[in-house]
Amino acid sequence: MDSDGLTEKTIDTQEIFKGRVVHLFLDNVQLPNGAKATREVVKHPGAVAVIAVNPEGKLLLVRQYRYPLDKIIYEIPAGKLEPGEDPEKAAVRELEEETGYSCAKMERIISFYTTPGFSDELIHLYYTDSLISGQQHLDEDEFLEASAFDLKEAVQMVQSMQIADLKSMYAVQFMQLRAKG
Amino acid sequence: MDSDGLTEKTIDTQEIFKGRVVHLFLDNVQLPNGAKATREVVKHPGAVAVIAVNPEGKLLLVRQYRYPLDKIIYEIPAGKLEPGEDPEKAAVRELEEETGYSCAKMERIISFYTTPGFSDELIHLYYTDSLISGQQHLDEDEFLEASAFDLKEAVQMVQSMQIADLKSMYAVQFMQLRAKG
Repeated sequence: MDSDGLTEKTIDTQEIFKGRVVHLFLDNVQLPNGAKATREVVKHPGAVAVIAVNPEGKLLLVRQYRYPLDKIIYEIPAGKLEPGEDPEKAAVRELEEETGYSCAKMERIISFYTTPGFSDELIHLYYTDSLISGQQHLDEDEFLEASAFDLKEAVQMVQSMQIADLKSMYAVQFMQLRAKG
Repeated sequence: MDSDGLTEKTIDTQEIFKGRVVHLFLDNVQLPNGAKATREVVKHPGAVAVIAVNPEGKLLLVRQYRYPLDKIIYEIPAGKLEPGEDPEKAAVRELEEETGYSCAKMERIISFYTTPGFSDELIHLYYTDSLISGQQHLDEDEFLEASAFDLKEAVQMVQSMQIADLKSMYAVQFMQLRAKG
């Protein structure tokens, strides 16, 4: 047993696949009791997501087909970090690309791991309510529609699974907690 | 453009890797505008997570080394569905394996996708406050410690990133909203 009885040590690592999003490794590791095991890791560049509230107090959501789910769902604006990109700048960029809005101020809320069991994806969550209208400009393989919903509507959309991704559900709870003061 | 202007169509699919956790596919797809693109999909059997509150009103958390993060973090009890397993039974099973507690009643809260950009992982979230003491019994390659924290402590652990995975942070917000009534 090592000192904390929990930590696993890397024996070797093998790159299995490098795609546009998924970068998969298969590692041999030594467990805390000395036994061997394998660990599969999807390395991720990190991402940002934005809670954006318009002057009417409505939450901006993007309606998007998600291929892995074969479903169209509503999510808060979000996207991957570009290499070396500052998360706050990425938050401003993704908000503008997906909704057309720029903003006067972008406030960091918190960061979280989405799937610690098999990926290191870390999402940095931001908040803004200082939106400035502009023009949506999507990536060439990106198709989505932006719209705005009040908190009551958003809570209902969670119940009906129109909002069904965890980061957006966290954002709705964040707004509920803020509304309760 | 297809009717909704958002949906992508599968042209073909190729299995890249099948591990213990990660089952990776690379698909060629047709975009809404008729152009071609590739999509990487990690297929997942689904999972359960449990908000478990003990008779002192404290939230059960498991302290676990997460290899993809190279970090020890606290999470709510959780685990993958076994083939064909009923989610409620899996919630009862994972709670008992990881914390030793069985329970008289397990209530379904909601389900969510953790990473819709590259995986179909769906987690079913349950709640129980009818715990019955027992004995922890982990998988042979699983090493974790269970303990209980009051809500104020859990909120601080989110701020300090000791609780840093999104499902557990969602659980803490859920308890905060419940406490506010």
